[in-house]
Amino acid sequence: MQIPEHIGVIPDGNRRWAQSQGLNKEDGYSYGLKPGLELFKLCQKVGVKELTYYGFTMDNTKRRNVQTEAFTQACIDAVKMLAQEDASLLVVGNTESPKFPDELLPYTTRKTFGQGGMKVNFLVNYGWHWDLGSLRQSEKSSKKALINSLKSKDISRIDLIIRWGKRRRLSGFLPAQSVYSDFYIVDEYWPSFKAEHFYAALDWYSKQDITLGG
Amino acid sequence: MQIPEHIGVIPDGNRRWAQSQGLNKEDGYSYGLKPGLELFKLCQKVGVKELTYYGFTMDNTKRRNVQTEAFTQACIDAVKMLAQEDASLLVVGNTESPKFPDELLPYTTRKTFGQGGMKVNFLVNYGWHWDLGSLRQSEKSSKKALINSLKSKDISRIDLIIRWGKRRRLSGFLPAQSVYSDFYIVDEYWPSFKAEHFYAALDWYSKQDITLGG
Repeated sequence: MQIPEHIGVIPDGNRRWAQSQGLNKEDGYSYGLKPGLELFKLCQKVGVKELTYYGFTMDNTKRRNVQTEAFTQACIDAVKMLAQEDASLLVVGNTESPKFPDELLPYTTRKTFGQGGMKVNFLVNYGWHWDLGSLRQSEKSSKKALINSLKSKDISRIDLIIRWGKRRRLSGFLPAQSVYSDFYIVDEYWPSFKAEHFYAALDWYSKQDITLGG
Repeated sequence: MQIPEHIGVIPDGNRRWAQSQGLNKEDGYSYGLKPGLELFKLCQKVGVKELTYYGFTMDNTKRRNVQTEAFTQACIDAVKMLAQEDASLLVVGNTESPKFPDELLPYTTRKTFGQGGMKVNFLVNYGWHWDLGSLRQSEKSSKKALINSLKSKDISRIDLIIRWGKRRRLSGFLPAQSVYSDFYIVDEYWPSFKAEHFYAALDWYSKQDITLGG
């Protein structure tokens, strides 16, 4: 079976899930922590080499304070949780804004936790415009030179993007690393994560003809 | 009904269609012309304001010569065909390479044909790395400043991307304009285009909750 080397995860639908449970919208985010760990362990098990979670964006922080505080806290908790595992962990995002949580500053250079192993990236206060904003034209506009001038240059090309919550869009997720990615959409909300979603995505991916634009 | 202002079209599956008909792979492209005109007229009818076709990429030209010649000719024919309609037409791509057809150089500044009307963009010898290669950091990394420094700056943000041929990926299609786009996939190959595909895509789009990252 053709296993993707790098999986991108868009864990969407936390607020819609909360509402479906009769909770306040902002209460949904903390229910995404357990799914995040489960997914990490499944990726580890099948031999995925790199995993990138879409935490929150600079745009997201324009939402109501109570929501911004809730997803920020969920991201802090998620990163600390992953730091208990065997992983090579990196947080990527705009640290120059007050919206970036101080608690995550120590994670903005890649560090090995436990036995190391899978590269795990977590986008926190990320913006596609912020990421692309430092690009400089190289002599040949080569793909490699371009990728190396991204703010997110330590994140590799993504093979498979799995998005929970039914929406079929990227929502600004790593535009340069996503140019050749295959998209798999799970209709269920992220807090309703099941291992079957992941296996169905892998099964679907293994049947794709990967051409990388050739 | 919520009509997308700007539709991006990835007309994929020409080679697979040709093979399914017992033709040589390169014979498929010319069968994509009629669908291209039909789609244009449908967009015109429902009031779409801008339409962008993915012609061919710099990567595509690394294919066998007989194929490169065939899709280049199909793009030349398609642009000339659209120039017979009421449209404001623009070809965007890397004109500094010998792979860019001389016949299309006159279309690389936007021109009004017939009564004008819908903006129609056609990507020819396009590369996502070429497009992003001229970005410069603005003071604030604002989205607007960023978009204005793209090579494809005359192409607006895309609301809906429709891809024929079953694959669920962008394949380098306008990464900056696609960050918030909704993706609709048609399983059938592009030469098998039917008006129903377009209407199904519009129907699906009208049910989406558009947030633009907010």
